[in-house]
Amino acid sequence: MLKQIEGGVTAAKGFWASGVRAGIKESSAKKDMAMIYSEVPCVGAGTFTTNVVKAAPVKWDQELIRHRETAQAVVVNSGVANACTGEEGYGYCRSTAETAAALLDCKPEEVLIGSTGVIGKQLPMDKILPGVAMLKEALQSGPEGGQMAAEAIMTTDTMPKQIAFTFEAGGKTVTIGGMCKGSGMIHPNMCTMLGYITTDLNITKELLQEALSADIPDTFNMVSVDGDTSTNDTVLLLANGLAGNEKITEKNADYYSFTEALRAVNTYLSKKIAGDGEGATALFEVKVVGAETKAQAVTLAKSVVMSSLTKAMIFGHDANFGRVLCAMGYSGVQFDPEKVDLTFESAAGTIRIAENGVGLDFDEEEATRILSEPEVTVTADVKMGTETATAWGCDLTYDYVKINADYRS
Amino acid sequence: MLKQIEGGVTAAKGFWASGVRAGIKESSAKKDMAMIYSEVPCVGAGTFTTNVVKAAPVKWDQELIRHRETAQAVVVNSGVANACTGEEGYGYCRSTAETAAALLDCKPEEVLIGSTGVIGKQLPMDKILPGVAMLKEALQSGPEGGQMAAEAIMTTDTMPKQIAFTFEAGGKTVTIGGMCKGSGMIHPNMCTMLGYITTDLNITKELLQEALSADIPDTFNMVSVDGDTSTNDTVLLLANGLAGNEKITEKNADYYSFTEALRAVNTYLSKKIAGDGEGATALFEVKVVGAETKAQAVTLAKSVVMSSLTKAMIFGHDANFGRVLCAMGYSGVQFDPEKVDLTFESAAGTIRIAENGVGLDFDEEEATRILSEPEVTVTADVKMGTETATAWGCDLTYDYVKINADYRS
Repeated sequence: MLKQIEGGVTAAKGFWASGVRAGIKESSAKKDMAMIYSEVPCVGAGTFTTNVVKAAPVKWDQELIRHRETAQAVVVNSGVANACTGEEGYGYCRSTAETAAALLDCKPEEVLIGSTGVIGKQLPMDKILPGVAMLKEALQSGPEGGQMAAEAIMTTDTMPKQIAFTFEAGGKTVTIGGMCKGSGMIHPNMCTMLGYITTDLNITKELLQEALSADIPDTFNMVSVDGDTSTNDTVLLLANGLAGNEKITEKNADYYSFTEALRAVNTYLSKKIAGDGEGATALFEVKVVGAETKAQAVTLAKSVVMSSLTKAMIFGHDANFGRVLCAMGYSGVQFDPEKVDLTFESAAGTIRIAENGVGLDFDEEEATRILSEPEVTVTADVKMGTETATAWGCDLTYDYVKINADYRS
Repeated sequence: MLKQIEGGVTAAKGFWASGVRAGIKESSAKKDMAMIYSEVPCVGAGTFTTNVVKAAPVKWDQELIRHRETAQAVVVNSGVANACTGEEGYGYCRSTAETAAALLDCKPEEVLIGSTGVIGKQLPMDKILPGVAMLKEALQSGPEGGQMAAEAIMTTDTMPKQIAFTFEAGGKTVTIGGMCKGSGMIHPNMCTMLGYITTDLNITKELLQEALSADIPDTFNMVSVDGDTSTNDTVLLLANGLAGNEKITEKNADYYSFTEALRAVNTYLSKKIAGDGEGATALFEVKVVGAETKAQAVTLAKSVVMSSLTKAMIFGHDANFGRVLCAMGYSGVQFDPEKVDLTFESAAGTIRIAENGVGLDFDEEEATRILSEPEVTVTADVKMGTETATAWGCDLTYDYVKINADYRS
C-alpha cells in the first residue's frame, strides 16, 4: 500500500540534508553544494555511467559501494564535474570525503561524492572544503533539508525534483524518498543525471543492490539513449534500517513491497527529468508493445523518443506518423514496417493514426488536440510478440526545430 | 591527373538535366522536380538507405539497379517522400517512370526515381505527371541544365551542391560530375540525402557498383551517424561510355584513376552537405587516428561529430576538450581515455589541447582564434594502432545551443 507523502531524501527516519552556495559558480547566486547524512550507517547501492570516460567521483563511489559495508553521507557539488582530471581530481574526492568525515564523525570511506558541471577542469578546493563545513552546519532533518539539497544539485533544471512514499514491511511503516537532477538540455546526453534515494528500510546490502540494479533499466535508463551517458551519471540508494522492520534477507513479500515503492520513486523522478528538458512544453512518452524481446522493445522505444524529428512533431502538435516509423526503422531492430499500428494518446483522448504501416485518414483537428496536451504518449504495436518497453523524453521547442514542426504545413 | 571543371551532372558527355516547379509544395515558388537524362543507355550503380522502412522510390531503384542492365533517366521530386505509402505509393513510381519513358523514348525500367519530403503522404500525381512533361521540355545539356537540377532537388539546403572533374583513362579525357542535396537540419538523420553522379566513362556495371560501394563508407556515410538514415537516402552513379575509353573490365590503372575522381566528387559533396547544416557557421571535421580497426575509428569519429555538445563547442569557439573525450567515451568503443591526445586545427593554426587524457595549459585566446574559422578540425589520437577515419558535421548555432556554448564562461 504505497502512499505518497511530503518531502524527498529527508523523508525517511534519520536522514538529514542541506544545500548551500559555496561559490563554485562564481557568477551565480545559486546553491551549488548539497549533503545527505544519515544518523546511523547505511547499506548502500549504486549504478553508474557506462561511459568509458568516468569522472573521479564515479570511480570513488564505485570503489566504496563495491568494497565497503556501510556509507553514512553524500557530498555533491555542481559547477565542476571533476571529469578528465586525472590523479589530482581523484585526490580531491578523498580530501572532500576526509573533511566531511571529520565533521560528521564517520570514516572518509563512508562518504560518497557526486559532481556535475564542466568537464576537464579541476575542482576549486578553496571553495569546496569550506562548502563542506557550511553544509554540515546547514543540515536539517525535515522537508526543508530535502528541499535545500534538491535545489542545490540543480544545474539547468528549472525545478527541484523530489518525491517520497511510505509502504508497509513486516508490520512497520517504511519510508522511501529521492531527489534527482537531470537534463536541462534537450538531449539526456547533454547533462549529468544524478539521483539520490534514501530509505529507512532494514535490508541486506546485496538485496538493496539487486533491487536498484533491476529497477534502473526500466526507469532512469529509459530517459537516456543507450550509451549516451555522461561521464558522471550516478544513482545512489542508501538504507539505514531505522524503520525497524525485520531485516529483509530474501525476496519475500516485504522485498517486493520495497521494489514497488522504489519503482514508484524512480519512475516519478525519471518522468520529471524527461519533462524538464530545457524549454520543454510536453512530456513525450513512447510505448512499444508486441516486441519479440525486451531488448527490441527498449531499442525501438528509445529510438523514437530521442529522434529530433518526433520530438519536433510533439512540439508542432503534428501527428506525422512517418517520423515515428522512420525512427523505428533506423534503430537497428528488424521488424516489418507494414505490420505496425500507431496510436497517439493524451488526456484529450486517443487516436489511431496508422494501421499496418500505412496512415489512416484520421481527423487532423482531433489529433492536434490530443498532441497539444502536456503529456503525450505514442504507442507502437509491432505485432511480433509480447514484450513491451516505455521511454520518456520531451518535445523540442527551439527555433531550429520550428522548421521541422512546420515542415508539413 | 584530376582537374576540376565547371558544372555538375551535365558535365559529362551526353548528359542533359532540368529542374522545374511542378507545384508539389503549393505554398512555395521553388523548383520541386528534377530530371537527368543520358542520350544513350548507361550502366548504373546505387547505394541505398539501410533503414528498415524504405520509401517506394528506394524499392523501385533497388530493383532496377539490381536486375536491369541499363538506365537512361532519373526523375526526382521534393516535397513528398513517398515513404510509408504502401502499394499505392509504389504504383506511383511506376506511373512516373512510364510517363517519363514515353516522353524520352526509353523503357520504364530504365527510369530511376528519387523523392524527398514529407513521409506518409501520397504523391500528388496530378502535379507529378505534368511535371515530368515540363522536365522533358526543359532539358539542357550545358551547365545550365545541371544548375537547374541541383536547385530543384534542394529542400532546406541553402545552396545548390555540385562539382565536376576530368581525368584521363586510356588516353581519353573522361568527365565525372555530381550533385546532391543534404541535411538542411542540424542532424543528417533529419533530412534525406540524395546524390546523383554521372560520368561518360566506359566501364562494366559490376565494376561501377564496386567502385561506388567502396567509396560511400568513407564519404557520404561519414556525414551521417550509423543507422541514422532516412527512409529515402540514395546515391546513384550512371556511366554512359561516351568518353570512348577502352571499356574498363578489370581493376587496372584506369579503374583507379576513376575511383580517385569518384572519391574527389563524393568528398566534395559530403563536405558541402555537412557544412550546409541549417544556420551552420562552420564545417566541423573530426579525425580519429591510432585506432586498432577501421570500425573503431569510424565509430569514434562519428560519435564526436554528432555530439550536440561538441557541435555547440565549435559554435562557441570554446576548446572544451572534455566534451570530445566524453563523446568518444559513450561511443561504445573500448579505449584508454588516459592515453588520448587531442589537437584542434584550422586555417588559423594548430593547438594541442590535451595529452594523455588530461587538459594542457593552452593559450585560450589562440584556441578561440583557431576555433573561429569556417572549417575546424579536431584530431584524436587513441594510440592503439594505425587505423584512421574522418567524419564531417557542422556547428550548432541556435538559441538552445547557446546554453551549452556559454556553459564554461
